[in-house]
Amino acid sequence: MKLRSERDSIGSMAVPEDAYYGVQTLRAVTNFPITGRRMCREMIVSLAQVKLAAALVHREAGRVEPEAAHAIVAACREIIAGGLMDAFIVDPIQGGAGTSANMNMNEVVANRAIELMGGRKGDYALVHPNDLVNMAQSTNDVFPTAGKLAALKLLAPALDALNELCAALEDKGEEFDDVIKMGRTQLQDAVPMNLGQSFRAWASAVRRDVERLSVAGEGLLTINLGGTAIGTAVNTYPAYRARVIRKLSEITGEPLVQAADLMDATQNLDSYVNLSAALKTSAVNLSKIANDLRLLSSGPRTGLGEINLPARQNGSSIMPGKVNPVIPEVVSQVAFNIIGNDFTITMAAEAGQLELNAFEPVLFDNLFESLRTLTAACTTFRKNCIEGITANRERCRKLVMESTGVATALCPYIGYQKAAELAKKSLKTGVPLPKLALEEHIMNAEKLEKVLDPSAMTHPLAAD
Amino acid sequence: MKLRSERDSIGSMAVPEDAYYGVQTLRAVTNFPITGRRMCREMIVSLAQVKLAAALVHREAGRVEPEAAHAIVAACREIIAGGLMDAFIVDPIQGGAGTSANMNMNEVVANRAIELMGGRKGDYALVHPNDLVNMAQSTNDVFPTAGKLAALKLLAPALDALNELCAALEDKGEEFDDVIKMGRTQLQDAVPMNLGQSFRAWASAVRRDVERLSVAGEGLLTINLGGTAIGTAVNTYPAYRARVIRKLSEITGEPLVQAADLMDATQNLDSYVNLSAALKTSAVNLSKIANDLRLLSSGPRTGLGEINLPARQNGSSIMPGKVNPVIPEVVSQVAFNIIGNDFTITMAAEAGQLELNAFEPVLFDNLFESLRTLTAACTTFRKNCIEGITANRERCRKLVMESTGVATALCPYIGYQKAAELAKKSLKTGVPLPKLALEEHIMNAEKLEKVLDPSAMTHPLAAD
Amino acid sequence: MKLRSERDSIGSMAVPEDAYYGVQTLRAVTNFPITGRRMCREMIVSLAQVKLAAALVHREAGRVEPEAAHAIVAACREIIAGGLMDAFIVDPIQGGAGTSANMNMNEVVANRAIELMGGRKGDYALVHPNDLVNMAQSTNDVFPTAGKLAALKLLAPALDALNELCAALEDKGEEFDDVIKMGRTQLQDAVPMNLGQSFRAWASAVRRDVERLSVAGEGLLTINLGGTAIGTAVNTYPAYRARVIRKLSEITGEPLVQAADLMDATQNLDSYVNLSAALKTSAVNLSKIANDLRLLSSGPRTGLGEINLPARQNGSSIMPGKVNPVIPEVVSQVAFNIIGNDFTITMAAEAGQLELNAFEPVLFDNLFESLRTLTAACTTFRKNCIEGITANRERCRKLVMESTGVATALCPYIGYQKAAELAKKSLKTGVPLPKLALEEHIMNAEKLEKVLDPSAMTHPLAAD
Amino acid sequence: MKLRSERDSIGSMAVPEDAYYGVQTLRAVTNFPITGRRMCREMIVSLAQVKLAAALVHREAGRVEPEAAHAIVAACREIIAGGLMDAFIVDPIQGGAGTSANMNMNEVVANRAIELMGGRKGDYALVHPNDLVNMAQSTNDVFPTAGKLAALKLLAPALDALNELCAALEDKGEEFDDVIKMGRTQLQDAVPMNLGQSFRAWASAVRRDVERLSVAGEGLLTINLGGTAIGTAVNTYPAYRARVIRKLSEITGEPLVQAADLMDATQNLDSYVNLSAALKTSAVNLSKIANDLRLLSSGPRTGLGEINLPARQNGSSIMPGKVNPVIPEVVSQVAFNIIGNDFTITMAAEAGQLELNAFEPVLFDNLFESLRTLTAACTTFRKNCIEGITANRERCRKLVMESTGVATALCPYIGYQKAAELAKKSLKTGVPLPKLALEEHIMNAEKLEKVLDPSAMTHPLAAD
Repeated sequence: MKLRSERDSIGSMAVPEDAYYGVQTLRAVTNFPITGRRMCREMIVSLAQVKLAAALVHREAGRVEPEAAHAIVAACREIIAGGLMDAFIVDPIQGGAGTSANMNMNEVVANRAIELMGGRKGDYALVHPNDLVNMAQSTNDVFPTAGKLAALKLLAPALDALNELCAALEDKGEEFDDVIKMGRTQLQDAVPMNLGQSFRAWASAVRRDVERLSVAGEGLLTINLGGTAIGTAVNTYPAYRARVIRKLSEITGEPLVQAADLMDATQNLDSYVNLSAALKTSAVNLSKIANDLRLLSSGPRTGLGEINLPARQNGSSIMPGKVNPVIPEVVSQVAFNIIGNDFTITMAAEAGQLELNAFEPVLFDNLFESLRTLTAACTTFRKNCIEGITANRERCRKLVMESTGVATALCPYIGYQKAAELAKKSLKTGVPLPKLALEEHIMNAEKLEKVLDPSAMTHPLAAD
Repeated sequence: MKLRSERDSIGSMAVPEDAYYGVQTLRAVTNFPITGRRMCREMIVSLAQVKLAAALVHREAGRVEPEAAHAIVAACREIIAGGLMDAFIVDPIQGGAGTSANMNMNEVVANRAIELMGGRKGDYALVHPNDLVNMAQSTNDVFPTAGKLAALKLLAPALDALNELCAALEDKGEEFDDVIKMGRTQLQDAVPMNLGQSFRAWASAVRRDVERLSVAGEGLLTINLGGTAIGTAVNTYPAYRARVIRKLSEITGEPLVQAADLMDATQNLDSYVNLSAALKTSAVNLSKIANDLRLLSSGPRTGLGEINLPARQNGSSIMPGKVNPVIPEVVSQVAFNIIGNDFTITMAAEAGQLELNAFEPVLFDNLFESLRTLTAACTTFRKNCIEGITANRERCRKLVMESTGVATALCPYIGYQKAAELAKKSLKTGVPLPKLALEEHIMNAEKLEKVLDPSAMTHPLAAD
Repeated sequence: MKLRSERDSIGSMAVPEDAYYGVQTLRAVTNFPITGRRMCREMIVSLAQVKLAAALVHREAGRVEPEAAHAIVAACREIIAGGLMDAFIVDPIQGGAGTSANMNMNEVVANRAIELMGGRKGDYALVHPNDLVNMAQSTNDVFPTAGKLAALKLLAPALDALNELCAALEDKGEEFDDVIKMGRTQLQDAVPMNLGQSFRAWASAVRRDVERLSVAGEGLLTINLGGTAIGTAVNTYPAYRARVIRKLSEITGEPLVQAADLMDATQNLDSYVNLSAALKTSAVNLSKIANDLRLLSSGPRTGLGEINLPARQNGSSIMPGKVNPVIPEVVSQVAFNIIGNDFTITMAAEAGQLELNAFEPVLFDNLFESLRTLTAACTTFRKNCIEGITANRERCRKLVMESTGVATALCPYIGYQKAAELAKKSLKTGVPLPKLALEEHIMNAEKLEKVLDPSAMTHPLAAD
Repeated sequence: MKLRSERDSIGSMAVPEDAYYGVQTLRAVTNFPITGRRMCREMIVSLAQVKLAAALVHREAGRVEPEAAHAIVAACREIIAGGLMDAFIVDPIQGGAGTSANMNMNEVVANRAIELMGGRKGDYALVHPNDLVNMAQSTNDVFPTAGKLAALKLLAPALDALNELCAALEDKGEEFDDVIKMGRTQLQDAVPMNLGQSFRAWASAVRRDVERLSVAGEGLLTINLGGTAIGTAVNTYPAYRARVIRKLSEITGEPLVQAADLMDATQNLDSYVNLSAALKTSAVNLSKIANDLRLLSSGPRTGLGEINLPARQNGSSIMPGKVNPVIPEVVSQVAFNIIGNDFTITMAAEAGQLELNAFEPVLFDNLFESLRTLTAACTTFRKNCIEGITANRERCRKLVMESTGVATALCPYIGYQKAAELAKKSLKTGVPLPKLALEEHIMNAEKLEKVLDPSAMTHPLAAD
């Protein structure tokens, strides 16, 4: 491999001759061989969008020579379009508050621009990564801004996936609205309901998650670009400050606004904590739904057996014919992971000191994973599970008929104590509760039938 | 101690003769000797408010005999006013999804009502805890509703305390706006700023917390009262369903609304998770502020020493004259506790099964503690720390003058590389950077003074 | 209320005349009104034990006048015996790294000693809280030492409770060893087992918890007493250093050892993190057992219904005859709380800075709660649930007979694919699998009976 | 791409003709597109080791035709040697309790064996993935066993890295043993110490982590292989049960033992929780050390400035000459991530139901990441930070001399109160404390010099 020599404040270092990255990137690779992974595409593109916005403003303001400006803009656009991805080699978990990520981008843009200008990579006299590509910027405003843009890019499909999941649950709610079944509280027989109500209730919870995530996402539109090192905007110039956010909004299509308090926006990461918390809350709801589905589909012979999940794969390597609730299981696992990520994000945010939080890289890595896996989990949940669920209507009805939960409906007529005795007697003797109630002359047959009609019990509100 | 005998479905049990609680409460005490604590006053009052709302509706609807209704209403009002608190003896962490808490209230109200009617405690023929006091209700709608009311009662002072803290920080921001100091990123000298900006940044973060908590609090206004056991409203009647929420709104002064999906509202606890998450986010910000204050006040001789926290107590039992940042320390500890509580709350919410979440008691216990201690921490933070902070103006300025961070301002003129060399030379030789820059003829003295003026560096935005 | 005036470095303050605590305690009360609770008895007694050990050494070394020494020793012994508890009024969550707790003890011991010597409370010329009671000590070695002693006091009953729970589970394991039932994986019918095996498996897990907690507890025997402020033992004297640990071992009955590296032992809290982690691991096992019991006892008519938990209280305020798994529910809640506490403890330990961790108070408060509630949960779990569990033998057997899980045993004879087809056919047609196998001439009736004998399937190992 | 058709219980599916995996693997890929990552090499190798152990036993027992046995063994060995890695395509986070991982291995081994036997991939009549490769096994014993083996493979380098880190810290402890510096508690000046003591204290903490992790690792040596589906060993045969663990021990070089209670070992994941907890405790210590290093190296001009971390890369993209503590920063981030992973692991373990825990995949994914990143963090911490640390001896001494913390040493002579007044006067007037003490005739100059000698204060124990 041919090498070129590059220098920074630490000293000289050999860089592969055809590499778009430079010495500062390479140092980071040596310093942070942590996860073996690289920054995600959304983050890379977002960093390039920030560079593009700055370069366009500098060009308009005449701060950069036209040729260099043109080349920098072209390089950024190339990356935004998905090019040069192999040149971004730093680990997403890195020290230095994102400086390595920012410098990786600065160096790649610089070297690509140099190349476009006909120069040799590494000849930073043509385009300097710090002085030109990073002009009027600091890692401390570029990296958080790009992080928010990346999160927004990942949030949109998450919201779509949740919305589609919600719709699928509602569809099933409608489909199963005539399936009378037993409601259970604390896993004990309670009172009758219908199966559609279960799916509607889950849909309602998911709908709230969509709302909460949308609101939390809005918090990401406020960025600290222009604040540079600590929020005082040192090394910027008036025209830049006036235009760069608008430029970035045009590039990204997001209605970005500059933080009113740039010091605050540079040092406090609560808007990410807030987004992660909304993801966590959604994870809680999803895992609860997944768990309920596992319960209702338990069986086929020795469980509740009220519904069937679509068979997606052999359930077992040893037990033939076994079909397992594999999709709800993966949903719960994603949920557990998102909840754990939330704790990492919380600790990272809490650890900020004075004018900066140096722990954003691990926060971003966890936040992006949470967003991406939530989307994936919702999609497979809907497509490979919810949409294919069928009901065991007969079994649902049979269980209601055998249960004593309907005794509740007798309370207003005979009191809690008497109804309890009746229920116990039915359980003990095996005589169905309605029959027992008739035998004991609680009320006449006609009224009893009406009072104990499970179907009516599921919708008393309808009577209002 | 004289005893009376009471009976429930489990059997007979001796209850202290003058106790307002009854057999079901006593069983709970035997079953759940967990924390040694009792339900908090806010929860007790909220439960009584729910009972009162129901009783008033029943009376209006003619469902309860006037005399009994009158007595029940009076008993509820007595408890709301702070009476009979000793009668609520169940542990806040309890199995049964809150049934014990609800029955403790039902029994106390019943026995007090019986007493008011001239009866003997335990003579439930007069006022039955289940049939009358709990009429048209279930633990499963009463307990969550009371939990939300209690949380709202505790949230109001928390918001006040946060608002006052925010105001105190802003006041200090104004007071210290002329104190030039060094900004630090990653604990390394960065660029100049002023001390007021630190306090404003903290205030900005707290202000967001207030907003987030307010929004999260609104989620608690949607309650499931009227849904009874599983949200189907079994054992309610039309007039009750039509009026009870409005009645409860009048009693509590909160603009309550009934959940559109009562099944959902009975089984999903995400609105509490959401509130806890907002508390956690606030805890993150508070702990970060507390940590910053510890850093800035470190010393007095061997630390940063830029500010002085008011001396609140002897700092040490062995080291004389030591004054420690005890208030920021307790604030961080409260934050850690709130963060831990958030995970308990998350797990409790995730563990819900089918038509009910049986783990609300531990969720409430943690949520109420988080709310109460956040209020306490904010109040002592403001009164015993923030308001008394003073600045070491001379030291702040001296540190700026000695630092090389101002080299940043030279970048636009001489480039990053050259500025870095200058900074390193200054650090190595001890020659102040401005002097060095002059010696090296970077620019003339007049311009240099302007470029390197730390005061200007703190407010470049002002120039726009 | 009569008052006396006391002075410390901050200034003068009025203290109730008959209070054993003094000015420094009162300041702490003003500074830290956080939880409304007080330090637990175990912590108070442990602090007094440390004071006693030190006082005895000082007396033997002739460092304190005999009369004062005698009085201090007597005061400590009084507290250890349970006296003066009302005098310890500081909040367990406090800033100052425990200085307030230590000074509360120093002041109470001093004032009680003064009183015993015939002096007036507050006349510290007789016995000075810092100079005499705290002689050769610092909060920074006293408080962590007392915290470890308190944890050990709380760990012993926790281990007892776990051991008793383990024994109860084993007893049930034996009792139910002949109850054939269906094993379930992923809540789907798997292969036969017996009910005793479930209880034994739970017992095995609890037994590991006992071992892990015992090992973690040993880590608490290494204390930093004698290290004073930062571990350099400043202000101690040779005889003290030589004897104080041995003295404290005698007093407490614990085989304490002094940390080899006192600096380390003063600043690092990992031994508590380790204990909390063992508690958390135990909580995980307990909650899993509790959840399994809820599943197995679900019903009575529409659930698995394999076992019955003892009815401990009315299950519902509205649904008559309902009996809920209230004890397993409270066990899971305690587990969630312990898990949340573990994260608070983790954060508190991580936040230590340089020569001290100032966040021990919140760590202790959470650790002690975890220990205490684990004990309580194990005890009620055993007494009020495990010991009274009965099996529904008939139903257990019936479910096995109806299931197709036994098809697994056919794999070695007919292959996975063929067995799967058979199982599916049985499920679809409702024809029992053994009958189907016979019809399809898989093997002769005799062999089939042997291969499909569920009882044999539960103990293949027995054949070895 | 050429395709072959494969069939399972769900139906037919096209598989790339040259793929070693089969239909069951492909279904998993469709069902679980969660992380975009694949199982790690250690897990793949461990699964192959289990298959090899089983195959060797089957061959010895004559249960498999020699030719097929030979081919299976060869295929397993090829994978163990690092071959066929591209064929393992399932996502590490998957539903089905690891069935997909196990079947991916079964199918790859089968197809490679078929190929070695001269057959065409997919012709499972030659070697059936379930009947032959998976013979006498279940995912439920194979997957947990492989998970433990993989964890052990990852634990060994983690222990090495921790040990080396510990040694490096000890070396620095020795190097800096003569550097007098100020000790700080609660970030406030305390009493003198030497810099070596800091490094030794950190080394002591890391040493405990090594011990705890070693003990936790031993818990992984107990495996459930042989228990098959639920721990009853269904579908195994006596010779297999007798030999398979010994065989696996030989293959892996680990002293494995079979769990005494196989039901327990199949359903309870506490041994992983325990290992994760030990990793978390280590993370707490590492982050505390990292944070201390950031504090001590803060500056260069406006911080504590007692030590210098080696400059590893440019600190800033905008602030020239800035060198940041990038390695400690990445160490803390890894720690936060490990702590978050611990919560995910805890939830996954808690969620187990009855005879199996279906959430092992996410547990493993987090556990393996924790192990791998701990190793990486320790290595870069040592090599790129600790080994290159230098001390600012002069500044360390100067700070001691300027501080008033030495007043502590006067307490035994003049009492706490008087010493406090002296310290305050020194702070107020700026007159050094020793000078002040002399002026106030506290003791004669000679004695004073001895009492206030900071060097002596660092090692009072040496006098014993």
